[in-house]
Amino acid sequence: MKKIDHIGIAVTDLKTSNILFEKLLGTQHYKIEEVVSEDVLVSFFKTENSKIELLQSTDENSAIAQFINKRGEGMHHIAFQVADITFEIERLKKEGFKFVDDQPKKGADNKLVAFLHPKSSNGVLVELCQDIEKED
Amino acid sequence: MKKIDHIGIAVTDLKTSNILFEKLLGTQHYKIEEVVSEDVLVSFFKTENSKIELLQSTDENSAIAQFINKRGEGMHHIAFQVADITFEIERLKKEGFKFVDDQPKKGADNKLVAFLHPKSSNGVLVELCQDIEKED
Repeated sequence: MKKIDHIGIAVTDLKTSNILFEKLLGTQHYKIEEVVSEDVLVSFFKTENSKIELLQSTDENSAIAQFINKRGEGMHHIAFQVADITFEIERLKKEGFKFVDDQPKKGADNKLVAFLHPKSSNGVLVELCQDIEKED
Repeated sequence: MKKIDHIGIAVTDLKTSNILFEKLLGTQHYKIEEVVSEDVLVSFFKTENSKIELLQSTDENSAIAQFINKRGEGMHHIAFQVADITFEIERLKKEGFKFVDDQPKKGADNKLVAFLHPKSSNGVLVELCQDIEKED
């Protein structure tokens, strides 16, 4: 839990928001990716020390659609890079944190991910993510 | 707008949340500071590449108290470090962004700060911050 991998921001329309964040950050998004398992289309922007991920729902029942219906567009989650996601899940469970995902799953940007339940972390949706090593 | 300086998280009780985030991040907060102009008591945690700021209201009418009343505890703002805050305010105004603060003001952590209005930035409360140089 040493490094902020990215900040996730829920948006209604990725195309419009990509233009907005290009103006805000002064840089273009470097990738667009569909994450079918989460029903989202995402784009990524690099900052000097981290990343911004914009998330647009592709299904009216997705978590992002529900988030926007309830609270509007805005900051959705904070993702921390970890070296060993299984170890971190166990460590945090022992500390009393609850998880949405007990087991890591494939997320965006070629990573294994797991989300903590915001109820156990001050209302903050926390994502753990670990790079998937490329096979030779 | 190259670097994420910190992520601000609104909390009800700083003491309780400091313990929670120590467990989450595996590191202790390194500073507690009162920002009288904003009616908040804040603590800071270092991550490898950025910082987490926890904000507790010290006045029932403060922006943080209103945020928590409306949405509960959670992610409140994202702060970007800039080299020249006056220049960035002008640049972003020309791009159509609206500001809560037209002029930079003294914020936490020895910085000049200015907040963009979330209505013009996808519901995200964005803070610009510039280090105040120490006088010899």
